[in-house]
Amino acid sequence: MADKTTIIVFSGDLDKAMAAFIIANGAAAMGSEVTMFFTFWGLNILRKAHAAPGKKPWMERLFGAMMPKGPERLGLSKMNMGGLGARMMKWAMRRKNVSPLPQLMEMAREQGVKLVACTMSMDVLGIRPEELIDGVDFGGVATYLGEAYEAKLNLFI
Amino acid sequence: MADKTTIIVFSGDLDKAMAAFIIANGAAAMGSEVTMFFTFWGLNILRKAHAAPGKKPWMERLFGAMMPKGPERLGLSKMNMGGLGARMMKWAMRRKNVSPLPQLMEMAREQGVKLVACTMSMDVLGIRPEELIDGVDFGGVATYLGEAYEAKLNLFI
Amino acid sequence: MADKTTIIVFSGDLDKAMAAFIIANGAAAMGSEVTMFFTFWGLNILRKAHAAPGKKPWMERLFGAMMPKGPERLGLSKMNMGGLGARMMKWAMRRKNVSPLPQLMEMAREQGVKLVACTMSMDVLGIRPEELIDGVDFGGVATYLGEAYEAKLNLFI
Repeated sequence: MADKTTIIVFSGDLDKAMAAFIIANGAAAMGSEVTMFFTFWGLNILRKAHAAPGKKPWMERLFGAMMPKGPERLGLSKMNMGGLGARMMKWAMRRKNVSPLPQLMEMAREQGVKLVACTMSMDVLGIRPEELIDGVDFGGVATYLGEAYEAKLNLFI
Repeated sequence: MADKTTIIVFSGDLDKAMAAFIIANGAAAMGSEVTMFFTFWGLNILRKAHAAPGKKPWMERLFGAMMPKGPERLGLSKMNMGGLGARMMKWAMRRKNVSPLPQLMEMAREQGVKLVACTMSMDVLGIRPEELIDGVDFGGVATYLGEAYEAKLNLFI
Repeated sequence: MADKTTIIVFSGDLDKAMAAFIIANGAAAMGSEVTMFFTFWGLNILRKAHAAPGKKPWMERLFGAMMPKGPERLGLSKMNMGGLGARMMKWAMRRKNVSPLPQLMEMAREQGVKLVACTMSMDVLGIRPEELIDGVDFGGVATYLGEAYEAKLNLFI
């Protein structure tokens, strides 16, 4: 029996998102059933780059406009320097043949990693299901805990 | 037998504190015995809003004055914008009927979640037991590890 | 049988590094086999203060120059104030007889805590093995997962 793995992705920083998907992909490659729960800023990783926001209260539009849309727009948790740090990091990764985040996400999906968006955070931040990439599941804290208590490895990133 | 859960609350950010208490409350509701360990900035979540600091060396008074006192004063880990972000978040939560942090803390205590303050951090930051809310336990890393090795789910937030 | 423990040290902040080594030392003292994986900014904790960078592309030299070299140069995750916060914290720790980070690291090594540097992060950030302190092991995500699935306590800091 393969060990289960869960990762809460709370952070929406490029470097932490990379770490989360590298661990998730490694675990899936080793035969583990992996679930990633995206909550708070982590939801930004799952946003489509060009989704129409639809009709929303102005405060939710503001939230939506202030937060990065998708993996290409994320900043670093340290030394971001207005996006320059993130660009340096991507440049260095390309040079070393490390897969960029969108490709790591694609690999995760191909390997059957389950991506779950936290419905409560979506509600508070005013993010609609249609603004997220396809193939995402939706759930709350009970969904998470149900999986975590069955898993061997549980991380909060 | 219900699974045990431990959460180290290192962060003193509003958003991370919310995540910690939502997970703790969810786990307790599912019958898990939950212990939260508050260390470093996480201790600020447990501070009373109006505790008299008492007699302290000036450096400890300075630390105490610089750090937020209790759940109402915490900022966001991202987009805090001098407190505006935290206010926006609270406004959005109220609108969506999500319990604010002080109420989540109250729920945790009603459900028997154990709150443990890290004595070493308290000592370093100069925080006295009487400055923390009532009903908090005190312990060190050995207390934490004793619980963590018996728990099924251990998170560091 | 003692329980195994793994800690991913992603953060290169002084306060989080302290928390990681205090937990690691406590676990080792309780008989646990402990492995710490240093990745991304966490690698800075393992850097020698005065290693010659050697011949490197200019971008890697730049990365290397911008990031702190070793435990004495780290900043706080909050209230760092250009290094003043870190100095206040060290001052407070000395006053309370809490071991400073370099000493915590020394204790960890004496207790047999295994320190593993993430080779992929080293490659991306352009950090060479000879720039890290002696006695460090090297590994990737598979090394980490192999240990984590056997451990009782797994944290991401």
